[in-house]
Amino acid sequence: MRTVYVIGIGAGDPEHLTLQAVAAMNRVDVFFTIDKGDDKDDLARLRSELLERHVTRPHRVVAAGDPHRDRAAAPGRYESAVVDWQDRRESIYERMITDELDADGCGAFLVWGDPAIYDGTLRILDRIAGRGAVAFAVESIPGISSVQALAARHRVILNRVGRPFAVTTGRRLADEGLPAGMDDVVVMLDARNAFAALPDTDLDIYWGAYVGTADEVLVHGDLQEVKAEIVRIRAEWRERKGWIMDTYLLRRRDR
Amino acid sequence: MRTVYVIGIGAGDPEHLTLQAVAAMNRVDVFFTIDKGDDKDDLARLRSELLERHVTRPHRVVAAGDPHRDRAAAPGRYESAVVDWQDRRESIYERMITDELDADGCGAFLVWGDPAIYDGTLRILDRIAGRGAVAFAVESIPGISSVQALAARHRVILNRVGRPFAVTTGRRLADEGLPAGMDDVVVMLDARNAFAALPDTDLDIYWGAYVGTADEVLVHGDLQEVKAEIVRIRAEWRERKGWIMDTYLLRRRDR
Ligand SMILES: C[S@@+](CC[C@H](N)C(=O)[O-])C[C@H]1O[C@@H](n2cnc3c(N)ncnc32)[C@H](O)[C@@H]1O
Ligand SMILES: C[S@@+](CC[C@H](N)C(=O)[O-])C[C@H]1O[C@@H](n2cnc3c(N)ncnc32)[C@H](O)[C@@H]1O
Repeated sequence: MRTVYVIGIGAGDPEHLTLQAVAAMNRVDVFFTIDKGDDKDDLARLRSELLERHVTRPHRVVAAGDPHRDRAAAPGRYESAVVDWQDRRESIYERMITDELDADGCGAFLVWGDPAIYDGTLRILDRIAGRGAVAFAVESIPGISSVQALAARHRVILNRVGRPFAVTTGRRLADEGLPAGMDDVVVMLDARNAFAALPDTDLDIYWGAYVGTADEVLVHGDLQEVKAEIVRIRAEWRERKGWIMDTYLLRRRDR
Repeated sequence: MRTVYVIGIGAGDPEHLTLQAVAAMNRVDVFFTIDKGDDKDDLARLRSELLERHVTRPHRVVAAGDPHRDRAAAPGRYESAVVDWQDRRESIYERMITDELDADGCGAFLVWGDPAIYDGTLRILDRIAGRGAVAFAVESIPGISSVQALAARHRVILNRVGRPFAVTTGRRLADEGLPAGMDDVVVMLDARNAFAALPDTDLDIYWGAYVGTADEVLVHGDLQEVKAEIVRIRAEWRERKGWIMDTYLLRRRDR
């Protein structure tokens, strides 16, 4: 049977790679990639660097174009825009697995961060398996996520003793504020400075962009005091690089 | 100045180690360990194995006894019992950093999983730094957490598209149920089968014990249907090994 690995490669630092990921990469015949266009260049660059440095076995790299994604989806339509786009990816991935792998071949997707955190690859593979047109086993290899990379660079613990923490998206934060009862909240995928609109005066923010890469920027402080600085840095970097990749922890101060 | 690394070594599988962790371990003069007694033997064993396999540089291992922890703390007293125990650890760690490291020496704590997830080491070092008796820099190196190891073995994504997820403790779950508004919740540190008391009939559970180790056990299904089996397996393994180390994801099914 075919095997498809979904391998987490860490959130930007090539040294995030695990020994398990290196070993899995050396069992792969074909690496599948999706060409996302220039705003996601860093993933492509990191991927090639890791293949070059760590894969000693003959292998092929097969690239497919990324289906257009409706980024301008109306609020509330975000989930369905993502799902539509994943539908189109499904067909592309199915074709790659069927056409590019031998009946007992081994393929892999190298995914940014951890495959279990805001990444759709496993979901897509699940749905392809459900269609039943091609049989394959899936293996997921964990990787250092941007959440952990952020925490490490700020030297913080995500939870407080005996307390929960949450991970959410910028869109949710903008629509609903902090999740109910959560005083430690990591925010990802924030395209619109959702943190800057929060009225709370008892929050600290631990913010990081391009964490683990040469461009890393970190800011930490009272949200109200540092938010303008973060908004400015985000605008500057978005200008400079064309895109921004940032994550932050919001922490309510204990009274 | 002294440097102290807090290095995440993954949640049980020696292959979880990152290249960054291996590199950091090879800059260390002294590895600090706390002897926790036999119920945490696996950490000690994994630690020695990793040192033996990956550290090529001369180094010392310094062990200290673990201060007694009040595990029978009354409900609601849990946080303060942990804090008391961390107070005592603080003095031990401070002494080790002061006495065992040269003025520009490099020490390390190897911690289970990720240093940012339900681990007190960074908090203790922060407080020692705050006392001001010994100056040192802290570096945190992320590691694969049990949360990610669990997700990978079940091949699941922790979040659903555009939705948040939470990580909490068995004690919180027992006291408060699932966090408000959260349909995807990872539970750690559950000593008392908190999942089995949940009345919800629309939850799936992805459960795993000793994930990533030779003893790994996984169960997945409708919570009400599989909970008795998990309770039974937990009792058996606790009997067999003397302790249990498990984590689970509770996922509310979409209507
Ligand atoms: C589609 S999600 C992928 C997350 C990835 N699977 C992980 O585990 O980190 C992309 C989001 O991850 C966050 N992110 C990824 N890499 C990052 C980095 N190096 N620094 C800061 N944020 C990052 C940003 O919030 C970004 O919007
Ligand atoms: C004190 S916390 C430490 C967590 C660790 N820092 C991490 O990132 O996974 C201990 C809890 O982690 C979970 N855990 C750690 N290793 C595990 C494993 N291999 N399998 C299942 N659960 C594990 C259990 O819930 C256990 O009660």
